[in-house]
Amino acid sequence: MGWSKAKMACKFCEIASESVVVFEDSISLAFLDHRPLFPGHTLLIPKDHYATLADLPPNLIGPFFGNAQRLAGAVERAMQAEGTFVAINNRVSQSVPHLHVHIVPRRKGDGLRGFFWPRQKYRNEEEMRRVQSAIVNQLS
Amino acid sequence: MGWSKAKMACKFCEIASESVVVFEDSISLAFLDHRPLFPGHTLLIPKDHYATLADLPPNLIGPFFGNAQRLAGAVERAMQAEGTFVAINNRVSQSVPHLHVHIVPRRKGDGLRGFFWPRQKYRNEEEMRRVQSAIVNQLS
Repeated sequence: MGWSKAKMACKFCEIASESVVVFEDSISLAFLDHRPLFPGHTLLIPKDHYATLADLPPNLIGPFFGNAQRLAGAVERAMQAEGTFVAINNRVSQSVPHLHVHIVPRRKGDGLRGFFWPRQKYRNEEEMRRVQSAIVNQLS
Repeated sequence: MGWSKAKMACKFCEIASESVVVFEDSISLAFLDHRPLFPGHTLLIPKDHYATLADLPPNLIGPFFGNAQRLAGAVERAMQAEGTFVAINNRVSQSVPHLHVHIVPRRKGDGLRGFFWPRQKYRNEEEMRRVQSAIVNQLS
């Protein structure tokens, strides 16, 4: 699918104009998630169609995550929350294949513990070192 | 608590040298989480002590998230995964008060659904508009 066609078929591209927008600049748009984890749950997207974090061009990373930072502060203060959860799903659990940063206001005891369960340990030192090598190799 | 004292008391600052490091540059360090959601679960931290995303200085945002992007690709390929989960907990659910980005390899059906449950709807349009205004006000 070419770029234009991907853009036209993308839910976020389509709804960009009809959403409850909280922020917009030349490169990005932020709007309320219609089915929030908690009220104030905001989605920040690049205006151009990039499917995942990996696809975001280097020159947009600073401005885009600068906006995520600013939004995290604003969402927390606006909802009188105690913290935030800032998350990106790449492909798996990604409902719409257009990069989006979830910015979710958090409070202690709000019930959103799911992410940290279940944790496990590496079977042994060797398994951990094998994983380390695999990642290091991919970076070089 | 002053900056130096905060740094000395910080678990991540202490363990930086004894961790299973997968990446390091002048501003950041990435190492394997010892109790991973899945093997390959990596934590990326700034070398200087910043407690949350809000505390990361503007000049570090581009380089830091550029590293997160690169790591997300490397972790996915290294673990032959299908996607990644990239997340920051600010204060609530933040086990160590030193900014850290979780980079978690994902596969369909891996059981990590927690984050997207429970979703709710806004009670009505009015509630949604009130939330929108509150966030917009905090941004201006």
